[in-house]
Amino acid sequence: MARERGFLAAIAVACTFAAGCAVPVRSVDPLPSWNEGAAMQSIVAFVSEVTLEGGARYVPPAERIAVFDNDGTLWSEQPVYFQLMFALERIQALAPRHPEWQTQEPFASLLKGNLEGALAGGEPAIAQIIMATHAGMTTEEFAQIVKDWLATSRHPVTKRPYTGMVYQPMLELLAYLRASGFKTFIVSGGGIEFMRPWTERVYGIPPEQVVGSSIRTKYEVRDGQPVLVRLPQLDFIDDKAGKPVGINQHIGRRPILAVGNSDGDFQMLEWTTAGTGPRLGLIVHHDDAAREFAYDRDSHVGHLERGLDEAGTRGWVVVSMKNDWRAIYPSSTTLHATH
Amino acid sequence: MARERGFLAAIAVACTFAAGCAVPVRSVDPLPSWNEGAAMQSIVAFVSEVTLEGGARYVPPAERIAVFDNDGTLWSEQPVYFQLMFALERIQALAPRHPEWQTQEPFASLLKGNLEGALAGGEPAIAQIIMATHAGMTTEEFAQIVKDWLATSRHPVTKRPYTGMVYQPMLELLAYLRASGFKTFIVSGGGIEFMRPWTERVYGIPPEQVVGSSIRTKYEVRDGQPVLVRLPQLDFIDDKAGKPVGINQHIGRRPILAVGNSDGDFQMLEWTTAGTGPRLGLIVHHDDAAREFAYDRDSHVGHLERGLDEAGTRGWVVVSMKNDWRAIYPSSTTLHATH
Repeated sequence: MARERGFLAAIAVACTFAAGCAVPVRSVDPLPSWNEGAAMQSIVAFVSEVTLEGGARYVPPAERIAVFDNDGTLWSEQPVYFQLMFALERIQALAPRHPEWQTQEPFASLLKGNLEGALAGGEPAIAQIIMATHAGMTTEEFAQIVKDWLATSRHPVTKRPYTGMVYQPMLELLAYLRASGFKTFIVSGGGIEFMRPWTERVYGIPPEQVVGSSIRTKYEVRDGQPVLVRLPQLDFIDDKAGKPVGINQHIGRRPILAVGNSDGDFQMLEWTTAGTGPRLGLIVHHDDAAREFAYDRDSHVGHLERGLDEAGTRGWVVVSMKNDWRAIYPSSTTLHATH
Repeated sequence: MARERGFLAAIAVACTFAAGCAVPVRSVDPLPSWNEGAAMQSIVAFVSEVTLEGGARYVPPAERIAVFDNDGTLWSEQPVYFQLMFALERIQALAPRHPEWQTQEPFASLLKGNLEGALAGGEPAIAQIIMATHAGMTTEEFAQIVKDWLATSRHPVTKRPYTGMVYQPMLELLAYLRASGFKTFIVSGGGIEFMRPWTERVYGIPPEQVVGSSIRTKYEVRDGQPVLVRLPQLDFIDDKAGKPVGINQHIGRRPILAVGNSDGDFQMLEWTTAGTGPRLGLIVHHDDAAREFAYDRDSHVGHLERGLDEAGTRGWVVVSMKNDWRAIYPSSTTLHATH
């Protein structure tokens, strides 16, 4: 009952600002995949108060900036980041054009199916894999390669398309925030141009609201046609202390809501919640081995330790995937409708 | 008559997409400061066709990206870029804290009022002036410095506040585009953080839609409070071939309309208008010595040569400030209302 009243108030208030209010507002639950617990209540309370015109904690729509990490926050990231899966499969696809890879590491190990051997070279090996698969083409060619890969590849464990492994509760949260006058951004350690070809379709987040890591590009005119060529040079790493830097560079104002899942998001939550006025920080905790994956302190992917230790004192809300979420992935029907 | 019909059609079409269409549409002229000439007609024709749902040249709202240069396109840039005026006045203001500047170039010449002598050191001298005035503080401190400067400084020729030297016809064009479902961006060689503190108030362009040159920032926690510190290191120059790179980095899709005034905007117009489908490139020509400033091929500031030479063959529209614009700056009443 309390829940329903909260939602109705939130929607009625949101309607003051959002477009389309000439249409009667339907009093539907905007977060149907969230269980009624502390996490959901803190979200609804926050949205209600910042949208309450005349209220003490009202925030004008222009300042309602919400930032979301991607890997592990909006979609899964196990057994390895999906962008690394993309890179590994691209190495396979490109191998016929690169006979030298048969004897050259890290490619030789990779092509023998020995991922561990390939990654034994550490960060330089990963950088070689990334540059071999992410640079050397135009920005438009790369976007097409990403789209083609997503259309055909399947996750090794779930056998779903990767874009079918986005979190249904997060799709609802994104839509709820936008209906409440928020502008939603992705701020991810992943590649900015790896995400942009599909975030609008899958999350409703347009390319200009995606912040991520990047390599350099160069403007060239080829046979009279201008192109942007992707160079094998790192430009920016949007992770850890880089996230507030990336937020400042791309958004130019401090968010009031940040959502992450690993210590790579720590500074983003710190920067967001240290601002004056109402602020909300959320940490998605992967504690559901049955429906997704369970990992935190001991995981290389999505390592979460400081965030768990300090969430309490900092007032950040830890979202338990196991207890707070009724569903993890969209049902195939929803998936179809969403995409 | 043709003009009025065009406008009405454009507004009626725009209304299909824009918010607030439950409110009756007023059939006002959206570009009252533009004379009825080829430039104005090409703008109205372009907006009408891309917003005509079901039309052959319809463009969905998400792809209606318009990019505007700032210096010389949205506000004046003579006798020198206003950001350089800011830097020079900051040197004066900071001089008491820097006794060493009395004997150290380029500061010594500057403090004696010898601008020419100070700039004799070329780009390194300018870089020294910029870093001495733009780095070393937090991003929030810098934003406040810019706001304070704009509130008190006056242009040496017009005696207006600098934000009173924005172009009234451009304010109308920005508003017309937004009412027609466009998202308007600034893409300027000027400093991104020099513009963001005031572009929303003056142009209606929020910080996240401002692209510009930048220096690096560093995330730090000082006494428990996180800050972003501005470092004296160049990060990105958003000029010439850098403009398409900046557009790709920040916006992630190709604009359909670009407006500039100098050869620094050439590649931005080239990149924009080389895309498929309807495209529009506009060049503001400073040919009005009586009401503003007249300069092009021989000017260091706002140098325009290749753009003039190639506009015809490339289909770019040259806007004559003298002939196409009824007004240059907002009247003080308008100014008051706008700000």
